Amino acid sequence: MINGEQGGVIHAMDRGVMYGDGVFRTMRIRRGQVKCWQQQYRKLADDCHALDILCPSLHTLEQELQQLARDEPDCVLKIIVTRGEGGRGYKAPPMPSPNRVLLTAPVPEYPIEFWHEGVKLHLCEIRVSHQPRLAGIKHLNRLENVLARMEWDDGMIADGLLLDANGWVVEGTMSNIFMRSGQRLLTPDLSQCGVAGLQRERILKHAPCLGLTPEITQINLPTLLNADEIFVCNSVIGVWPVRQIGLNAIPLGSVSQKMQGILERDLD
Amino acid sequence: MINGEQGGVIHAMDRGVMYGDGVFRTMRIRRGQVKCWQQQYRKLADDCHALDILCPSLHTLEQELQQLARDEPDCVLKIIVTRGEGGRGYKAPPMPSPNRVLLTAPVPEYPIEFWHEGVKLHLCEIRVSHQPRLAGIKHLNRLENVLARMEWDDGMIADGLLLDANGWVVEGTMSNIFMRSGQRLLTPDLSQCGVAGLQRERILKHAPCLGLTPEITQINLPTLLNADEIFVCNSVIGVWPVRQIGLNAIPLGSVSQKMQGILERDLD
Repeated sequence: MINGEQGGVIHAMDRGVMYGDGVFRTMRIRRGQVKCWQQQYRKLADDCHALDILCPSLHTLEQELQQLARDEPDCVLKIIVTRGEGGRGYKAPPMPSPNRVLLTAPVPEYPIEFWHEGVKLHLCEIRVSHQPRLAGIKHLNRLENVLARMEWDDGMIADGLLLDANGWVVEGTMSNIFMRSGQRLLTPDLSQCGVAGLQRERILKHAPCLGLTPEITQINLPTLLNADEIFVCNSVIGVWPVRQIGLNAIPLGSVSQKMQGILERDLD
Repeated sequence: MINGEQGGVIHAMDRGVMYGDGVFRTMRIRRGQVKCWQQQYRKLADDCHALDILCPSLHTLEQELQQLARDEPDCVLKIIVTRGEGGRGYKAPPMPSPNRVLLTAPVPEYPIEFWHEGVKLHLCEIRVSHQPRLAGIKHLNRLENVLARMEWDDGMIADGLLLDANGWVVEGTMSNIFMRSGQRLLTPDLSQCGVAGLQRERILKHAPCLGLTPEITQINLPTLLNADEIFVCNSVIGVWPVRQIGLNAIPLGSVSQKMQGILERDLD
């Protein structure tokens, strides 16, 4: 659905196509409801604001996604907002008219063990680049993720772990990452690179419910591999415990599954 | 023209839209001929290869651009090649079918003084990020250029100068940059970031015709500002001498205009 009309095409002059000049969010529709919709919208609006793109109104998007959810009550929804068409080269027009795209896709069928027994992560060779002006934003310049995802082809590897050029842990190619060390729950600082997903935010908020102290910090690989427990998260999968990174076994703990439950139940 | 058919739309599931997963080239059509077409195609093919995208054949593109050039014998042509549609998340499908987009636009009307009297460059605040896996490639992840271009609105500023996070000179937002120091003609090393344009390559090749020794090297801002002469280049403008960067006056020299002539005449 593009700008409220069914049909899957976009103008080739759209700045999303030409420059990746836009943002997106991916979310789960279940029983016709978008999980955490208000928060997803807030993050979409924040990301639009960061790039000076006019965000479609909450009301407009709500109407459109309700229409989609009637036809597909159980799916993955991707919302893309581009700056729209026009401008001269990289210079945007003075009053661009953003384009909004709502795409639905079937829920990916991952093995049920991924949730119960944990997943393996590939340790990516490509390093993510520092760009503080884009860090945290879910924008459409995702070639690093595409290149990272080309590095493995084994269906039993659930995601790839990305480091930055200095060796700091950043995220998964499609997830954020947490490590527990005693009663501390650590996740990488994303002020230089990476995407700050909604589930990351929710987990930081709910950590105290499990007696954990959340902490956003720099984490290097040896520290990560020494964790008491590791998990990855995003809005489609929820939480997957991590049992292996590259060739390194990671201990399983109970926090990952407790956090699965909390994110499932809590809808705020 | 998309995949050989007239009409300006692309599927919203195209990986170019979703991830900027593609490459492009911009070139000049004059009197129905694409300037340096063989070299443009070779660079397009090289960039496709670097991202493991199947490049459309020379023959296919030639037929399509000849058709466009008949209707618009004097214009700017942009060729976009995306990896195509499909795949699961960042993972590309095993045999993607690339999409090719040919867009024409009027030749931008810059003041004639830009060629004769030189241009002013804005010194951009945003720093371009290091990503050796993407460096040199004219890919569709161009948000840094878009953000850089937002930094000025004065029509008499012709381009913005981009540095990397360490302060090394990289390029203009839409051009490559050269400095002359005595008989040396220097241009930044682009192994960490930046786009290696065709005119940059041609200028390096032709420098000896002007008695200059071409050199690809690291250049910091003080060195640049101390140049005997500076110019920027791309396939639409050719060569513009630079007379000011930020508030710093730059001496004009004769090499810029000589290089304009060489690039105009030489078509190999």
